[in-house]
Amino acid sequence: MGNLRRVPVGIVGASGYGGVQLIRLFMDHPDVEVVYVGGDSSAGKAFGDIYPHMAHTVNLKVEAVDVDAIASRCEVVFLSVPNGLACQLAPKLLEKGCKVLDLSADYRFRNLTTYTNWYGKERNDAETAATAVYGLPELYRDRIAESQLVGCPGCYPTASLLALSPLLKQGLIVPESAIIDAKSGTSGGGRDAKMNMLLAEADNSLAAYNVGRHRHTPEIEQICSELAGHEVTVQFTPHLVPMVRGILATVYANLRDPGLVRDDLITIYRAFYRNSPWVKICEAGVCPQTKWACGSNVCYIGIEVDPRTGRVIVMSVIDNLIKGQAGQAIQCMNIMMGWEETLGLPKLGFYP
Amino acid sequence: MGNLRRVPVGIVGASGYGGVQLIRLFMDHPDVEVVYVGGDSSAGKAFGDIYPHMAHTVNLKVEAVDVDAIASRCEVVFLSVPNGLACQLAPKLLEKGCKVLDLSADYRFRNLTTYTNWYGKERNDAETAATAVYGLPELYRDRIAESQLVGCPGCYPTASLLALSPLLKQGLIVPESAIIDAKSGTSGGGRDAKMNMLLAEADNSLAAYNVGRHRHTPEIEQICSELAGHEVTVQFTPHLVPMVRGILATVYANLRDPGLVRDDLITIYRAFYRNSPWVKICEAGVCPQTKWACGSNVCYIGIEVDPRTGRVIVMSVIDNLIKGQAGQAIQCMNIMMGWEETLGLPKLGFYP
Amino acid sequence: MGNLRRVPVGIVGASGYGGVQLIRLFMDHPDVEVVYVGGDSSAGKAFGDIYPHMAHTVNLKVEAVDVDAIASRCEVVFLSVPNGLACQLAPKLLEKGCKVLDLSADYRFRNLTTYTNWYGKERNDAETAATAVYGLPELYRDRIAESQLVGCPGCYPTASLLALSPLLKQGLIVPESAIIDAKSGTSGGGRDAKMNMLLAEADNSLAAYNVGRHRHTPEIEQICSELAGHEVTVQFTPHLVPMVRGILATVYANLRDPGLVRDDLITIYRAFYRNSPWVKICEAGVCPQTKWACGSNVCYIGIEVDPRTGRVIVMSVIDNLIKGQAGQAIQCMNIMMGWEETLGLPKLGFYP
Amino acid sequence: MGNLRRVPVGIVGASGYGGVQLIRLFMDHPDVEVVYVGGDSSAGKAFGDIYPHMAHTVNLKVEAVDVDAIASRCEVVFLSVPNGLACQLAPKLLEKGCKVLDLSADYRFRNLTTYTNWYGKERNDAETAATAVYGLPELYRDRIAESQLVGCPGCYPTASLLALSPLLKQGLIVPESAIIDAKSGTSGGGRDAKMNMLLAEADNSLAAYNVGRHRHTPEIEQICSELAGHEVTVQFTPHLVPMVRGILATVYANLRDPGLVRDDLITIYRAFYRNSPWVKICEAGVCPQTKWACGSNVCYIGIEVDPRTGRVIVMSVIDNLIKGQAGQAIQCMNIMMGWEETLGLPKLGFYP
Repeated sequence: MGNLRRVPVGIVGASGYGGVQLIRLFMDHPDVEVVYVGGDSSAGKAFGDIYPHMAHTVNLKVEAVDVDAIASRCEVVFLSVPNGLACQLAPKLLEKGCKVLDLSADYRFRNLTTYTNWYGKERNDAETAATAVYGLPELYRDRIAESQLVGCPGCYPTASLLALSPLLKQGLIVPESAIIDAKSGTSGGGRDAKMNMLLAEADNSLAAYNVGRHRHTPEIEQICSELAGHEVTVQFTPHLVPMVRGILATVYANLRDPGLVRDDLITIYRAFYRNSPWVKICEAGVCPQTKWACGSNVCYIGIEVDPRTGRVIVMSVIDNLIKGQAGQAIQCMNIMMGWEETLGLPKLGFYP
Repeated sequence: MGNLRRVPVGIVGASGYGGVQLIRLFMDHPDVEVVYVGGDSSAGKAFGDIYPHMAHTVNLKVEAVDVDAIASRCEVVFLSVPNGLACQLAPKLLEKGCKVLDLSADYRFRNLTTYTNWYGKERNDAETAATAVYGLPELYRDRIAESQLVGCPGCYPTASLLALSPLLKQGLIVPESAIIDAKSGTSGGGRDAKMNMLLAEADNSLAAYNVGRHRHTPEIEQICSELAGHEVTVQFTPHLVPMVRGILATVYANLRDPGLVRDDLITIYRAFYRNSPWVKICEAGVCPQTKWACGSNVCYIGIEVDPRTGRVIVMSVIDNLIKGQAGQAIQCMNIMMGWEETLGLPKLGFYP
Repeated sequence: MGNLRRVPVGIVGASGYGGVQLIRLFMDHPDVEVVYVGGDSSAGKAFGDIYPHMAHTVNLKVEAVDVDAIASRCEVVFLSVPNGLACQLAPKLLEKGCKVLDLSADYRFRNLTTYTNWYGKERNDAETAATAVYGLPELYRDRIAESQLVGCPGCYPTASLLALSPLLKQGLIVPESAIIDAKSGTSGGGRDAKMNMLLAEADNSLAAYNVGRHRHTPEIEQICSELAGHEVTVQFTPHLVPMVRGILATVYANLRDPGLVRDDLITIYRAFYRNSPWVKICEAGVCPQTKWACGSNVCYIGIEVDPRTGRVIVMSVIDNLIKGQAGQAIQCMNIMMGWEETLGLPKLGFYP
Repeated sequence: MGNLRRVPVGIVGASGYGGVQLIRLFMDHPDVEVVYVGGDSSAGKAFGDIYPHMAHTVNLKVEAVDVDAIASRCEVVFLSVPNGLACQLAPKLLEKGCKVLDLSADYRFRNLTTYTNWYGKERNDAETAATAVYGLPELYRDRIAESQLVGCPGCYPTASLLALSPLLKQGLIVPESAIIDAKSGTSGGGRDAKMNMLLAEADNSLAAYNVGRHRHTPEIEQICSELAGHEVTVQFTPHLVPMVRGILATVYANLRDPGLVRDDLITIYRAFYRNSPWVKICEAGVCPQTKWACGSNVCYIGIEVDPRTGRVIVMSVIDNLIKGQAGQAIQCMNIMMGWEETLGLPKLGFYP
């Protein structure tokens, strides 16, 4: 299909949800071949032992994490590892000429002090980190195209920033008034056995968590500040919802111009995302459902203006594991490789 | 237990979720006997035909709605009927000496113009409506005690107002900054066959609805205005969550005094609700789960202060069908009858 | 991609779950173009008004059902309509030269008396019905290849028959001992607003229904009888499970030869399905999860033998809306057109 | 209510689901006071730290497990501990005069070899075990009344045996034809963090597990054999369903007398359970929902006869944590104490 050869890609951390999404998504990518999957606890296992339903289509063995081996075989490497590990692997892989896309938090921050404050880990790779680009293509497409190292956004920041960016960029809202009430399915917590994530505990229930102190807050604020042109503090509250996949960010902000109506904002959003094939602005009056986005790389955005309060309410939904994680990373890779950013990514899941 | 006789009670609208909760709750009430259940479409049926699992414990037949018959047999009547019907029944029942508790929206508004604006129905029972008390005992215990007609609050307003009242009453927040991001299980939509409420549609998904125009907004604003001492407009956004029961209201507001810390507010809330046995203020750092409240009449409230933004975030959870509907109505009845307001109501559901 | 032109296809009954699956699946099919979608209640609507999340990718308008118009534009027509309607449309479409795939029950029965007994409708298209082939490719691949009219199997029969066929065909079990305990997500009930299918009713719960009298019983028995070479009666019990998609059929039967062990049967199944790319036999000891199959056309089969009881237990999982409905219909069409039967169909959904 | 004093009760293993049900259920029991709760990992914690929503109603501290201390304070002791621990505690507690109800598997077996074969643990308390009574009151009410040690049934055996007992006791079926296809919510797996029990893994999915080798099989067979009067082997297959609470056992068996019709069997079941207040036989044609039983100690049984196959199909639903565990244990205690067996137990949960 076009390219003479498939680009050899490696994935470190293949057994978690990030890894399995990457492998599944690459099955439909015409120009990529996964030639390496690596892991610690799962090294030596066939991938089909970890995910039995994939045994008939994925013939990969999880290998130990050996930077030399990876670099010798892979042109592009995805790091789907716990925070604090990517920053040990990335410098070496870059040095050996790989392009690196990190799905952890390690390369999301311009200011490593922020990282250290929120993630509690000292960093000694400042030089590498300075070259990293924040992997939200709708905002940083050009920089991503030229980068060797992309720090892919968190799932909450993706939904939140796609909702907020047009407002901040155009100066339409009072930045400090922004409140993000975000709701996520429990797959965001990963494939780790945690008591509070058991179906018996989390089903039929709903709660906020980490109020005022979730680690995605500084990531959101960093980009908001850049868009606003000054330091911005936002309110961010995550909630766990009894479903597997999907994030809805309901974003509130005070409009500077009380005369703006919903249709104005829909027009502005459509213009802002004109060249962003993965963002869809809903018709007036439509509230997006998280399920619409599940199984696809699409972000659906619904917009309301409440003339009684002078606020705009923006609703943004994504599949937290695709546009919020693995799909977005592949979208970034597409851009780094000079391909169409839609290449090989799912446009639509199955409904219902 | 004490009383020589049980008070005879009637329920109009027995087949919906409001009705079945009332009947179930009264099974455990020591001083009440349900002597009449009425309905239109279900008239003539045994209650056990509508809810087969209750056949062995509930021996009631649904009767036609006949005001004279009801009044002759019942001392207290609960109206669990669609909006616009209660205002036809209540005046007659009151005239015949019944105490009336209305679970619909008909008697929640001091200003009937507000009702007509939001519910689209003209009213000609202004005199009766003027005697109605808003059935939120935590705020209006004394008035309820002396009333013959109680307009029981909606489920969202109950969760929202219990979260906001201490802040507004004590003047701790800028009232106009209040934002209520509310999330509900789908039983709030009632037992009507609606396509969007099918499990196949609503499960695994999440969305806002009626943004900026949900009918519970004026109800919340009416009480907030009374507490603040001036007209207050609030932002209220409801969401549907893939679970059966439970509401979480996440409430945001700007603190007037930036020096207030979380422990101050916990102290203030505990004092405010000192005599309210159904409101429990969580320990510092605890976010309440909706499941905690399910099957009980309890409202759990968690409080956070974000010193970075100067905001308070209050999380309030209830069982939408008990404290948000039938349980609260019984709590009001208890007060009207001069009983303990906890009488016969469940303190705790089953976990998990 | 290969073919010079895409085959023009029509779908009658586009707004239900069968229709939306067909449209979604055809988006990924390289050799088909959907040129017509028809419906009664939805005629005149844009497809994106019925399923808003698809508005950006599907640019189709629902048209009235006009056989002449359909036949003039479509080479192949899928009927996704209520039982009893397909038998009115199919004869005319066939006469005009269309190939027809019916997703309803109308063309599943060799003996129309059986149809009339179970579906309560007289038929006067016996001649047409006699030409229909039962659309289970794993059993009737050759006949499907030569047919103009395919009666696509029900969802339960698909899962049940794929589990039972090797046993019956090889004479390994006592046919009358077969018991099928089947469990389905609620999307099997379609997109009709039914009270018992509300999330508030069906979530957190589980029950059997139509025990001993579900309409899929005669369909299963017809094929079992053909495989066994004599009339076979089976026990079939469907259950509703609180999830959207997926069917698990747990099948029990007494082995004729008590010496057979699990590995023998795995070998036999693998041989039986050697040329069936959509059936995957699990490794010994693995019980398939319905979620594995969701979003794909795959049927996973797990096999156990209980030497204590002399029974075989076969577990078969499918996505009820894909392999159990629309995907299987496309698989049949692929065969009718002389294409690979895997063409354009999803091999794997997203996990988790 | 009547008794001059409340019986002092102790619970060993208070932090798991069995423990929390016992504590919750005893809150409504008029004649019992929980005076001791013990645990290993949770010793020293307030119970409200483990289950925060109960902090306002339960004022208990988890204590270390000290047999002397327990025996000196408790008249009755419930053991809600892992298999293999109860058999170390029970002999000492019995010796000191306590009545003991064990919720684990340790005292369910008449033949300790069976226990050792299935649970892999040698036993040296044969003398004590010989005095244990199997705690299914509907079958062994009289023996329970006189016992000091009750081995409470597993959740699956409770549902299965209540479905099968009348058939076996009256000789109505061919015992070896019995097949139990059982489905359970995931709370049956306990409050342990296991990867496969995560909501992200278990939701939207369904599968069988431990086919042909679940440990509840010998327990079911032991009682079936006693009822049948000879050794009986049954087929038992458990499934995990994406819900929190509830078990449905769908039981199949061949009728000896093909002339028996559904109404005959309903009559026979009603007679069999005439004195069993916790078993409710559904009207003809009604399939019980697991949700009906949740939050109560009731077992609902629905019965069908399929004249085509000569089989009876019995559907039995319980709340796995109440009638399947803690509620049944209290029912046994009520009998041991000479009280009404319904005392203090919930007759009905909340619906929906």
